[in-house]
Amino acid sequence: MSNIHESVQMGRNTVIERGVVIGKNVVIGHNTVLLEGTYIGDNVSIGSNCVLGIKPGVNKRMRKTNQLDQGLVVESDTHVGHLVSIYAGTTIGEGVFIGDQASIRENVCIGEGSVVGRAAIVELNTNIGKSCTIQTLAYVTGDTTLEDDVFIGPCVSMSNDKYMGAQPYLLKGPTIKKGAKIGNNASLLPGITIGTNSIVGAGTVVTKDIEDNVTVAGVPAKKLN
Amino acid sequence: MSNIHESVQMGRNTVIERGVVIGKNVVIGHNTVLLEGTYIGDNVSIGSNCVLGIKPGVNKRMRKTNQLDQGLVVESDTHVGHLVSIYAGTTIGEGVFIGDQASIRENVCIGEGSVVGRAAIVELNTNIGKSCTIQTLAYVTGDTTLEDDVFIGPCVSMSNDKYMGAQPYLLKGPTIKKGAKIGNNASLLPGITIGTNSIVGAGTVVTKDIEDNVTVAGVPAKKLN
Amino acid sequence: MSNIHESVQMGRNTVIERGVVIGKNVVIGHNTVLLEGTYIGDNVSIGSNCVLGIKPGVNKRMRKTNQLDQGLVVESDTHVGHLVSIYAGTTIGEGVFIGDQASIRENVCIGEGSVVGRAAIVELNTNIGKSCTIQTLAYVTGDTTLEDDVFIGPCVSMSNDKYMGAQPYLLKGPTIKKGAKIGNNASLLPGITIGTNSIVGAGTVVTKDIEDNVTVAGVPAKKLN
Repeated sequence: MSNIHESVQMGRNTVIERGVVIGKNVVIGHNTVLLEGTYIGDNVSIGSNCVLGIKPGVNKRMRKTNQLDQGLVVESDTHVGHLVSIYAGTTIGEGVFIGDQASIRENVCIGEGSVVGRAAIVELNTNIGKSCTIQTLAYVTGDTTLEDDVFIGPCVSMSNDKYMGAQPYLLKGPTIKKGAKIGNNASLLPGITIGTNSIVGAGTVVTKDIEDNVTVAGVPAKKLN
Repeated sequence: MSNIHESVQMGRNTVIERGVVIGKNVVIGHNTVLLEGTYIGDNVSIGSNCVLGIKPGVNKRMRKTNQLDQGLVVESDTHVGHLVSIYAGTTIGEGVFIGDQASIRENVCIGEGSVVGRAAIVELNTNIGKSCTIQTLAYVTGDTTLEDDVFIGPCVSMSNDKYMGAQPYLLKGPTIKKGAKIGNNASLLPGITIGTNSIVGAGTVVTKDIEDNVTVAGVPAKKLN
Repeated sequence: MSNIHESVQMGRNTVIERGVVIGKNVVIGHNTVLLEGTYIGDNVSIGSNCVLGIKPGVNKRMRKTNQLDQGLVVESDTHVGHLVSIYAGTTIGEGVFIGDQASIRENVCIGEGSVVGRAAIVELNTNIGKSCTIQTLAYVTGDTTLEDDVFIGPCVSMSNDKYMGAQPYLLKGPTIKKGAKIGNNASLLPGITIGTNSIVGAGTVVTKDIEDNVTVAGVPAKKLN
C-alpha cells in the first residue's frame, strides 16, 4: 500500500488491488474497485461502484486485443462518475470529465479537458483529442479518431464494421476532424471522414465522406444550401 | 442512525451516510450507497449496487448547477431497480418505477405513478408529469417538460443544445404536451413542442413544433393525411 | 455453501445468497451479488459489481410476468462482464459473452456462442439463437425472436408496442430470421419479420416485413436495386 498517498479519502468497501498508485488529494467513492496496475494522478475524484483497470476478456468470435502490459492511467484533475467501467491500456488525460455509467475500453487515449457523457461508450483503439464533448448515450465505436474540439451529440451512433460480422477484414471507425459537430442520434457509417468544422444535423445518416465547413442533414446526408 | 425505521430490510455491504432518513417497510439491496441527506419514504424498494443522492460534479466546460441544498427525495411506494444512479435535489413521486441502470440528474421532478425504463436517462432541470412512461434507453435531455400521460418510446433521443456546445446561450429541451406519444428511436430537436395527444412515428426526426392531435413521421417529420 | 465448488475464485465483498450453485473453475469479481437460486456452470467468469438472478419487480402500469419458479441459469464457459444485471427465469447458453453494463430480463434464452454487447439490453420473453451478435447499446425488445447467426448492429432500436402504452393488447417484437444483419441505429417496428440473410442498412426505419435475401435502406425502408 506504499504507493497510495496518505491524503486519499477512501470510501467504504473499496477494493484496491496490488500495484495500484494513487496521487495526492484523491477522493474515491464507496464499493469502487481499482484493479491491478491502475495509476490515479493528483486531485482525481472517482465515484462509487466503479470498476477501473479491467483486463479485456474475449471469446472466439471477438477480436483479440494487442498486448496490453500497461495498466489504466488517469491523469490529474480528472473526474470519474459513479458506476463507470474503464479498461487497462487506456490513458485518460488531465482535467477530463467522465459521466456516470460511462464505459471506456482498452487502448483508448482521451485528451486534456474532454468530456465523456453519462452512459456514453468509447470502444477500443480509439483516439479522442483535447476539449472534445461526447454527450450522453453516444456511441464511439472502435478504431475511431476524433480530433480536438469535436462535439458528438447525445445518442450518436457509429459503426466500424462494413460487413457486419463477416470477418476477417479491417475494422475502421469514422474520422472526425477538428471542430466538427454531430447532432443527436445521427448515424455514421464505417470509415467515413467528417471535415473540419462541418455540422451534421440531428438524425442524419452519413454514408459518405463530408467535406470541410459544410452542414449536412437527411437520410442519406445531403448538403444544405 | 435514529432516522432509519426499525422495519428496514437492509442488504449486505450497504453504505448509509449521515442525515439519511428511511421510512417504514423499506427494502434495500446489497452494496447500495445512500449518500448524505437522502430521504426514502415508506414501502420503497431499492435494488443492489445503486448510488442515490449524488452531489453534482462539474468541470469548467460544463454548466454549474444552481444551489442544491436539498437532498434526494424518494416518496412512498416507489421501486428503484439495480445499478441505478440518482442525484440530490431531485424528487421522485409516489408509486414511481425506476428500471435497472437508469440515471436521473439533479433538479428533476417525476410525478406520481410514472415509469422510467431500464437504462433510461433523465438530465437536469426536467419536469416529468404523472403517469408518464419513459421506455428503455430513452434519453430525456435537460430543461425538458413532459406533461401527464406522455409516452416516450425506447431509444428516443432529445437535444437541448441548438448550437452544439458553442456556449453561452440558453439551453432548452422539448416540451411534450399531455398524452403525446413518441415512437422508438425518434429524434427531437431543441426547444420544440409536441402537441397534446399527438403521435410521432418511430425513427422520425422532429425539427419544428407539432400541433395537437396529429400524427407525424419521416425525416424531417411530416403530417400523415 | 455446499453447492459452491471449492475451486471458485471469489472476489471481495461478494454476496452469495442461499440456493446458489457454482461449478468448477469459476471466477467471480468484487462486490458482485448472486441472488437466491442462481446456477453458474463450470469455467464461467463474472466481473465486478454485477447483480445476477433478479426477481422481477412490477408496478400497476407494467405487465405481470408469468410464474417464475426457476432461477437464472448461466451455462459453462460463459463470460459475464462488469456491472451487468440479469434476471431469474433466464438461461444463458454455453460459451456466451455478455459485455459490461448489459442487462437481460426474465424468461430469455440465449443460444450457444452468442455475444451480447456492452450496455446492450434484452427484454423479457425473448429467444436468441446460436452464434448471434448483438452489438453495443442495441435494444432487443420483449417478445422478440432472433434465429441463429443474426447480427444486430450498435444502437439498433426495436419496439413491441404498436399502440404505445394504450393497453391491453398483444405485445409482439420483431422476428429476425437466420443470418439477417441489421445496421447501426436502425429502427424496427413491432411485429415485423426480417427475412433470412437480408440486410438492413444503418439508420433505416423498417415499417413492414422484409423478404429473404434482400438489402433495404431509407426511411421508410426500401429495397436497393
